[in-house]
Amino acid sequence: MTMPRNSLPPKIAITMGDPRGIGPEVVIKAMARLSRQRGFLPLVLGDLRILAATARTLGCRLKVMEVEEGYREWQPETVPVLALSHLPGRIPSTGIPSPESSRAAFAYVAKAADLALNGKVGAIVTGPVSKEAISEAGIPFRGHTEYLAEESGTKEFVMMLAGKKLKVALVTTHLPLRKIFKLLGEERIRSVIEMTHQGLRDFFHIRSPRIAVAGLNPHAGENGLFGEEEAAISRAIRQASSKDLLVSGPWPADSLFYRAKQGEFDAVVCMYHDQGLIPLKLLHFDDAVNITLGLPFVRTSVDHGVAYDIAGENRASSRSMEAAIRLAVQMAKKHKSQMRSG
Amino acid sequence: MTMPRNSLPPKIAITMGDPRGIGPEVVIKAMARLSRQRGFLPLVLGDLRILAATARTLGCRLKVMEVEEGYREWQPETVPVLALSHLPGRIPSTGIPSPESSRAAFAYVAKAADLALNGKVGAIVTGPVSKEAISEAGIPFRGHTEYLAEESGTKEFVMMLAGKKLKVALVTTHLPLRKIFKLLGEERIRSVIEMTHQGLRDFFHIRSPRIAVAGLNPHAGENGLFGEEEAAISRAIRQASSKDLLVSGPWPADSLFYRAKQGEFDAVVCMYHDQGLIPLKLLHFDDAVNITLGLPFVRTSVDHGVAYDIAGENRASSRSMEAAIRLAVQMAKKHKSQMRSG
Repeated sequence: MTMPRNSLPPKIAITMGDPRGIGPEVVIKAMARLSRQRGFLPLVLGDLRILAATARTLGCRLKVMEVEEGYREWQPETVPVLALSHLPGRIPSTGIPSPESSRAAFAYVAKAADLALNGKVGAIVTGPVSKEAISEAGIPFRGHTEYLAEESGTKEFVMMLAGKKLKVALVTTHLPLRKIFKLLGEERIRSVIEMTHQGLRDFFHIRSPRIAVAGLNPHAGENGLFGEEEAAISRAIRQASSKDLLVSGPWPADSLFYRAKQGEFDAVVCMYHDQGLIPLKLLHFDDAVNITLGLPFVRTSVDHGVAYDIAGENRASSRSMEAAIRLAVQMAKKHKSQMRSG
Repeated sequence: MTMPRNSLPPKIAITMGDPRGIGPEVVIKAMARLSRQRGFLPLVLGDLRILAATARTLGCRLKVMEVEEGYREWQPETVPVLALSHLPGRIPSTGIPSPESSRAAFAYVAKAADLALNGKVGAIVTGPVSKEAISEAGIPFRGHTEYLAEESGTKEFVMMLAGKKLKVALVTTHLPLRKIFKLLGEERIRSVIEMTHQGLRDFFHIRSPRIAVAGLNPHAGENGLFGEEEAAISRAIRQASSKDLLVSGPWPADSLFYRAKQGEFDAVVCMYHDQGLIPLKLLHFDDAVNITLGLPFVRTSVDHGVAYDIAGENRASSRSMEAAIRLAVQMAKKHKSQMRSG
């Protein structure tokens, strides 16, 4: 990709995630691996003391240093941190969240949204938080994606999980399985197909993306024998096809992901969380990236949780965080050039 | 496994499946691969002309020959067939089912059930049929497993799909996703856990099977935030644990199958069809076997469908059929020795 010579590299806001989870560890490990990669300005939103102590514990040579949000030059071998909390307590983490740590986890995300909405960063990369812990600390929170959509007044958005072998886009996400049925309308499905198409074109450079849509019921309903929802899915596919999108389905979900893995499709549109995440995690256990399509800014995320059970044990893999940062940089550059040309 | 010297090898009823699908092809291909394997008597329930023509088309050296159901010696290089239909029409198949071909597909299954219930065969192996085509031909049919359970007066049974890397057992099977919720009761789940335990012990020789149970909702409900059904699952697990079974969960389904594949569990109990079949087919696209646990006889099956679109094209893999026959033989021997000692 060519960049205008005088343009600044994009600034990427990276939230530390839950201070009591594996977030600080994966951020430090990822920054260590990416410390020689230029072409972007990292800005870690988190807790200075926790990040510094984590770096020491991991034996990491990087210097964790405080910066202002407007900083413009990434010093070699440093982790630039916008300090948003000053949590007390033992480090490494005990793995048990407190109301303070959960509220801090939320504060990093809120600040990241604010920076992105005001054009002060080119992308957000989010570390893992616990929806449950944040909710219990008194902040209603259904997940990063839903929160960022709400803050930015975005009505239509899509959660996509992307790995090298498989990409899935979800029509519904974090809600009880019982409640998905009334959300599987023709309009929503068509909109997800179109946002997936656009995302694959814009950010993955696929000129004519081949999109498969999964059925909801066993055997995609076997023509109505095991369920009716495939009728709306079919109508949505026909509508998208009529706009010259390469989209097919509804396919029986059980064999579909094997076909996608074999290269038959560029992405699979899935009806519910586990339909997409079961195959994704089987193929990309620790290196998939979570992307939100449809927001007015670029946002990627790790695709794993807080993993309280192994927090502070130096056992967490930072592969998903590294991939999330790399992809955010690539998407932010593309996004900026689109905005310029648009 | 040692066998009493004078016991006959088990007779295995193999249904040809839908005459217009890939069933005849996978049966002939599997018989060709297994033709030197002794230790069992195959009895193919199907259409003599179609099987003979399929063998010729495939250039297979085996002789397709008619036998009676009571035949006692497998001639080398033959496919012994109990002729149950005499269908007209072009061969290779057009891939389009007719009422006659669908009724014939059902007749093979009905006869197999009859032979097994009367102790005339030691196991049933079923080829692929289309539930939809059989229903449209006027025979109410929800699937092999459901039919065989009904015919044998079996109230509690489990569909298990087994591959080398992953085995899944299903709490619910072929019904609209919308209808699974009221079937996920504590008793049913506990019963599936126990039948899975027993099946792994009896037929896979695992002394202390480690069973994982999947949650239903995203993140296994994240402690009630995304759904309530995990409470009943937890109670069922506690009950089974109290009987000294090695069972754990409810686990978030998205990362569970990766863990099972890595060897952490011997089988995963799944709440619905696609929850189990998506990961299974991703890991075992053409070599998994479908087993029904809880029937009064041994039954295995291919885990694929009729594939009308490639019928008669010599493109179908017989790996699942071969694995289904091999496993049925192994299970029938074990079953017989249990019945003797019981």
